[in-house]
Amino acid sequence: MKIAMLGSGFIARFYADSLVGHRRLDKLHAVYSRDIKKAKQFAQDYNLPVYSDSMYDVVNHPEVDVVVISLPNDLHLAAVQACAKAGKHVLCTKPLGRTAHEAKQMLDAVEAAGVMGGYLEDLCYTPKFNKSLASVKAGALGRVLWAKSREAHPGPHSNWFWDKEQSGGGAIVDLGCHCIEIARSYIGKQVRPVEVMCWAATQVHPIDAEDNAIGMVKYANGAIGQFEVSWCFRGGMDLRDEVMGTEGTIWINNFMRTGFDMFSTGKGGGYVAEKAESSSGWLFPVGDEVNELGYNHMFTDMFEAIDGHREPTETFYDGYVVNAIIDAAYASAKSGAWEKVVIDDWRGSNDTQIASDFAVYNEQYYLIKEEILPHGQKKLLLKDKTTGEVVVRDM
Amino acid sequence: MKIAMLGSGFIARFYADSLVGHRRLDKLHAVYSRDIKKAKQFAQDYNLPVYSDSMYDVVNHPEVDVVVISLPNDLHLAAVQACAKAGKHVLCTKPLGRTAHEAKQMLDAVEAAGVMGGYLEDLCYTPKFNKSLASVKAGALGRVLWAKSREAHPGPHSNWFWDKEQSGGGAIVDLGCHCIEIARSYIGKQVRPVEVMCWAATQVHPIDAEDNAIGMVKYANGAIGQFEVSWCFRGGMDLRDEVMGTEGTIWINNFMRTGFDMFSTGKGGGYVAEKAESSSGWLFPVGDEVNELGYNHMFTDMFEAIDGHREPTETFYDGYVVNAIIDAAYASAKSGAWEKVVIDDWRGSNDTQIASDFAVYNEQYYLIKEEILPHGQKKLLLKDKTTGEVVVRDM
Amino acid sequence: MKIAMLGSGFIARFYADSLVGHRRLDKLHAVYSRDIKKAKQFAQDYNLPVYSDSMYDVVNHPEVDVVVISLPNDLHLAAVQACAKAGKHVLCTKPLGRTAHEAKQMLDAVEAAGVMGGYLEDLCYTPKFNKSLASVKAGALGRVLWAKSREAHPGPHSNWFWDKEQSGGGAIVDLGCHCIEIARSYIGKQVRPVEVMCWAATQVHPIDAEDNAIGMVKYANGAIGQFEVSWCFRGGMDLRDEVMGTEGTIWINNFMRTGFDMFSTGKGGGYVAEKAESSSGWLFPVGDEVNELGYNHMFTDMFEAIDGHREPTETFYDGYVVNAIIDAAYASAKSGAWEKVVIDDWRGSNDTQIASDFAVYNEQYYLIKEEILPHGQKKLLLKDKTTGEVVVRDM
Amino acid sequence: MKIAMLGSGFIARFYADSLVGHRRLDKLHAVYSRDIKKAKQFAQDYNLPVYSDSMYDVVNHPEVDVVVISLPNDLHLAAVQACAKAGKHVLCTKPLGRTAHEAKQMLDAVEAAGVMGGYLEDLCYTPKFNKSLASVKAGALGRVLWAKSREAHPGPHSNWFWDKEQSGGGAIVDLGCHCIEIARSYIGKQVRPVEVMCWAATQVHPIDAEDNAIGMVKYANGAIGQFEVSWCFRGGMDLRDEVMGTEGTIWINNFMRTGFDMFSTGKGGGYVAEKAESSSGWLFPVGDEVNELGYNHMFTDMFEAIDGHREPTETFYDGYVVNAIIDAAYASAKSGAWEKVVIDDWRGSNDTQIASDFAVYNEQYYLIKEEILPHGQKKLLLKDKTTGEVVVRDM
Repeated sequence: MKIAMLGSGFIARFYADSLVGHRRLDKLHAVYSRDIKKAKQFAQDYNLPVYSDSMYDVVNHPEVDVVVISLPNDLHLAAVQACAKAGKHVLCTKPLGRTAHEAKQMLDAVEAAGVMGGYLEDLCYTPKFNKSLASVKAGALGRVLWAKSREAHPGPHSNWFWDKEQSGGGAIVDLGCHCIEIARSYIGKQVRPVEVMCWAATQVHPIDAEDNAIGMVKYANGAIGQFEVSWCFRGGMDLRDEVMGTEGTIWINNFMRTGFDMFSTGKGGGYVAEKAESSSGWLFPVGDEVNELGYNHMFTDMFEAIDGHREPTETFYDGYVVNAIIDAAYASAKSGAWEKVVIDDWRGSNDTQIASDFAVYNEQYYLIKEEILPHGQKKLLLKDKTTGEVVVRDM
Repeated sequence: MKIAMLGSGFIARFYADSLVGHRRLDKLHAVYSRDIKKAKQFAQDYNLPVYSDSMYDVVNHPEVDVVVISLPNDLHLAAVQACAKAGKHVLCTKPLGRTAHEAKQMLDAVEAAGVMGGYLEDLCYTPKFNKSLASVKAGALGRVLWAKSREAHPGPHSNWFWDKEQSGGGAIVDLGCHCIEIARSYIGKQVRPVEVMCWAATQVHPIDAEDNAIGMVKYANGAIGQFEVSWCFRGGMDLRDEVMGTEGTIWINNFMRTGFDMFSTGKGGGYVAEKAESSSGWLFPVGDEVNELGYNHMFTDMFEAIDGHREPTETFYDGYVVNAIIDAAYASAKSGAWEKVVIDDWRGSNDTQIASDFAVYNEQYYLIKEEILPHGQKKLLLKDKTTGEVVVRDM
Repeated sequence: MKIAMLGSGFIARFYADSLVGHRRLDKLHAVYSRDIKKAKQFAQDYNLPVYSDSMYDVVNHPEVDVVVISLPNDLHLAAVQACAKAGKHVLCTKPLGRTAHEAKQMLDAVEAAGVMGGYLEDLCYTPKFNKSLASVKAGALGRVLWAKSREAHPGPHSNWFWDKEQSGGGAIVDLGCHCIEIARSYIGKQVRPVEVMCWAATQVHPIDAEDNAIGMVKYANGAIGQFEVSWCFRGGMDLRDEVMGTEGTIWINNFMRTGFDMFSTGKGGGYVAEKAESSSGWLFPVGDEVNELGYNHMFTDMFEAIDGHREPTETFYDGYVVNAIIDAAYASAKSGAWEKVVIDDWRGSNDTQIASDFAVYNEQYYLIKEEILPHGQKKLLLKDKTTGEVVVRDM
Repeated sequence: MKIAMLGSGFIARFYADSLVGHRRLDKLHAVYSRDIKKAKQFAQDYNLPVYSDSMYDVVNHPEVDVVVISLPNDLHLAAVQACAKAGKHVLCTKPLGRTAHEAKQMLDAVEAAGVMGGYLEDLCYTPKFNKSLASVKAGALGRVLWAKSREAHPGPHSNWFWDKEQSGGGAIVDLGCHCIEIARSYIGKQVRPVEVMCWAATQVHPIDAEDNAIGMVKYANGAIGQFEVSWCFRGGMDLRDEVMGTEGTIWINNFMRTGFDMFSTGKGGGYVAEKAESSSGWLFPVGDEVNELGYNHMFTDMFEAIDGHREPTETFYDGYVVNAIIDAAYASAKSGAWEKVVIDDWRGSNDTQIASDFAVYNEQYYLIKEEILPHGQKKLLLKDKTTGEVVVRDM
């Protein structure tokens, strides 16, 4: 497959590093940038035959099979529409839109054109996520009660991120999109997100958008998805997920505590590790960022989906749902109350019930807990189904 | 000093293990239990000369200087009043009351009687907490933006905890009291807690109270305290704190990941470690629980406060503020909106302002961020103070 | 490039999983197994057009460009000779030979034939190793003093490993080969390994070879490489490296503590994670084993080396040096004394001196240490260059 | 009990911090220092009624019950003899002597005088060590095969440590004494240490003694104790233990990775944490050093041993055995071969055999290993007891 890249900035280079690694069949072929010098530089760096400052030309280039959108958020919609019109498959970076309204137009565009719309939600493709999600689906955690994802760092690299108009918001739209989709995947994509409670504030930076936020997403089955996002974090990149189920727990740390610790006085030499706030003291590099952040597995899934005429794991529909949740989060941050998630085009399950499968001890009692005391004795805590009385039984 | 213990259950034994360790000057002297057999057993186990099933007799015993209350939550008020009447110093386990109304009566009782009221909030005395709080006070983290504390385990040992009437609630009142006071200490006890947003649900157990809850406490200076509490957690005891400041970060793990990992096939023998859900596989014991959980440092502070005629670090007033925050949390869980924290007797600062100390670059610009790009170049992200425009400067 | 696999067992399947992942240009094309049913099964599983129980036929298949040897250790030499004779590039699993004598013959064979001999030392290609080695080469650790690598697990999967005749030894030849080459890479491949001290014992298993061993390799520059290997370890797979330099430290954990913790009661369902000793309790899976163990980066380097007519990072010459060190380790385990490393064909540096670059304070003194005392004072510990006297200077 | 302190330096203050914490019954009463100004300062800081520059006066002070020796290594013998003569119990810091010959004279002195000789080996009293040793003794690890202890930091604080004559050696005698006794405790104090292999070098500092060393101690039952000690480590204090048994594993980290992580830009303020090499970047403080390093539990054991007329856990005899092992380590570092441990006065078991309890499968076979393959099949690896043949059985 031949690939065109729209954009030549930070994320475009990250994607390209994944695409040119490990001798892939699929080849980056063309690049578009508004700035022709940047397009040329990118083409040189990655050895691409085609570069241009015309998005139209690149998208419509006859050898291009699939287009990767790595543009600022406010340019996604127009770019997707151009691809759909050209009949090219399109992979769009996160978030899909600035709002659900924008995202829905993109979803409609690819569906009308019959091209694949892949949502580049890399953090739902990391090796740890893949394996833990498989375990959750196999039942290792029982019923999922709560799934939390946290992303925090000192703020984004590119300047357009700091402009609310271009980005659509602050840390919620930038980082929350990841966290929301991670939690939603663990809870189950067929389960409807119902309402959102969110706190957001501008605590540190001289900007209009929020640089710190915490939100809770209530799902139709009673599970809670939580996101914690910040542009105020000091110490590097904090990227962690936690899941609680009735039968188990998952703790994932994607950055800074992955079994790679380095100390340097800084006297020895220059380069130690990227993304650290310094190059001396204790540093916690990640071995292979494009793999650990999910880019490799994400692009493999996308290209195999195109080849196999199937949906990828992350679709434009997923991007649309995430935007709908983000819209509700912003509404809640403003109103100070739980706000409904508006999804006009809901394609999941509608008959989910809040789970209430209490453990039954016998006809008369529920089992609250089996207790092992410090000296080894066991006792049972039971609740009478009718009177509600709590009783203790020694075993 | 001679100490009387009211109660002989799980927490009373934990306190006693701390009090008899390391050859302390201060001695456990008497114990009260409603059940005389339990009182006798406790007195035997800890070698106490006095035991009784009359609380009055124990509290008023002439050799007793100070009373430790380790009774169910609904009995705290009466016990505190008995101690105050007897003119004995009183140390009460957490939470102080089931409600702020109860806590206020206890506070009033000790203040009227002129005895010391120590609030046994052990997790604000752990060695890690002590050292990290000292660092925060010394400015190592700059301005504190967010302080989160999480406590989660499979549910309490004693049956009265599961009865909402006796305990005053579920995981919030049982575990949230710790988390709230930890966050409040990092943010600063003089800063007024303003309002609370809380989600709570009964997800797993057949009980009336909540077994899972998440809450946010907004402080007058704009900082956020967060609590995450659960009786549904699997895997042992999850006890972690996190603090974000403008200049730094703290991550504390008090249990299960403290540098002590043990694997056992279980074939070798019986006992491995308490509090684990099993005795085989990977286990994460804590070396010395009464020290790690803060009991040693807490009792040392309490007795030195009495000797030194000073306030201890954790007072009945602190317990009252915590109860006021818990009251607001329950109100919010019900209303689905932010609820005011009602503190009639506020003794802290009243003139706190929300901080907004943006970094100034020069007369025209604020500094958003200094950026080091992957290839080593630096750039500045600036914001025009008047136009609001974001500009980039290469360095 | 088209690839033939010799062998269809555990390691062959691991290699194949890497080779078919992420849509690689280079394709597995043929497989050889002594057992035609296994060859057929392997061909089916990985979708290969060619399978056979004739090694000759597979090696000489006209479409095959490069051969991967995944056979028991005693069959490496004959297989390499067959590939050399056929003029095919050859990639051989570790250890290269059972002895340096065997390894030297393989090295000679590929060099005489003018084909590339790639040594499949995957643990010198893991993402963490790649990045940490780059840091060490850039000087972040100063002068390397000691490099330790540890590999321990409950014993190998395949039965031939347990037969000393086929494998050439026990844990040293199986696991020590990795550890030796890791340490050697950090210390510098141009530095000559001089002598080895090794303890080895059969502590647990009813076998002739060692199941536990510790060794030290002394290098010409005074640095020490240490290996710790065991087939007696309980708890999973222990795979850790440590490096000490004059200006820094590296700690790498490749397995079981990589930021991925899972707890399961085991009630929920079946599968949780491979390589664990159980499927309940606390488990520590690795996200993507073929990537974390270095297979992806190793094969990429090998194929790019062939394409680029350059040496790969790990060559048959490296395999030969490793075998020479292993030979000395076995000699030392027998003699109880340091034993020389015999490398007839040494291609590295011969003029390395033991480093002795003491920090100079001034004309009279060496600097032993600058000390910061608990209360903040600084002092200098100095040593008189001529008298040897140690003196203290307050600062 | 009233306590006299001999010495007023780094370790004396550490001990004193433990002795005055937590309102102990036993009181520091007197201090001796060669420098009367330091004695006076110490007495002021810890509120002691008696200070002197006469060791004789302090040891013979009528109110003193027990003497703590915190002097340089070369002064231990004379101090112990003075205490024995005065009939005072004596607690001596580690190492007991510079050589086994010195240690034996101290042992003889206290035994002849009938006073208690307590060996202040604090790292055999840390909370983690206490609990893990109890688990090992209860059989949780099966038969112990290997016990490793590592202590490494950038070098000692006090200048006399750097003078081989006063200290008796370098990192081995300073740090190795801890590591040796830790491993010996896990393996069992009744098991005779037989011989030692040791590498030692002066890699970095301008001193006569070794600043880096690794040693192995072979025990009569075939177990191996390993020590890794260094004064060249960068990054803080590396203090870790590992134990391998037939049924389990222990990993202990006493410093720098104990669940307490702090990041500071350093802009906020001064003090963050002691023992770190800097006060900015990622720091890993220990919560309560005197507790985590075992001082509290050590002194409690010592005083209760005196009160209870029993031996403490760590005696002068233990100190003597450790010195004997250190003597053998220095001999081996010189000879390059295993050297015998000379213990004239061996009081442990003499009939230990090297364990060889192979797992029996049935009359014909030993069990090598039960294997679970990636796809879930099980197989057995067996060895014929008479022919030695390895066979595989599918299950």
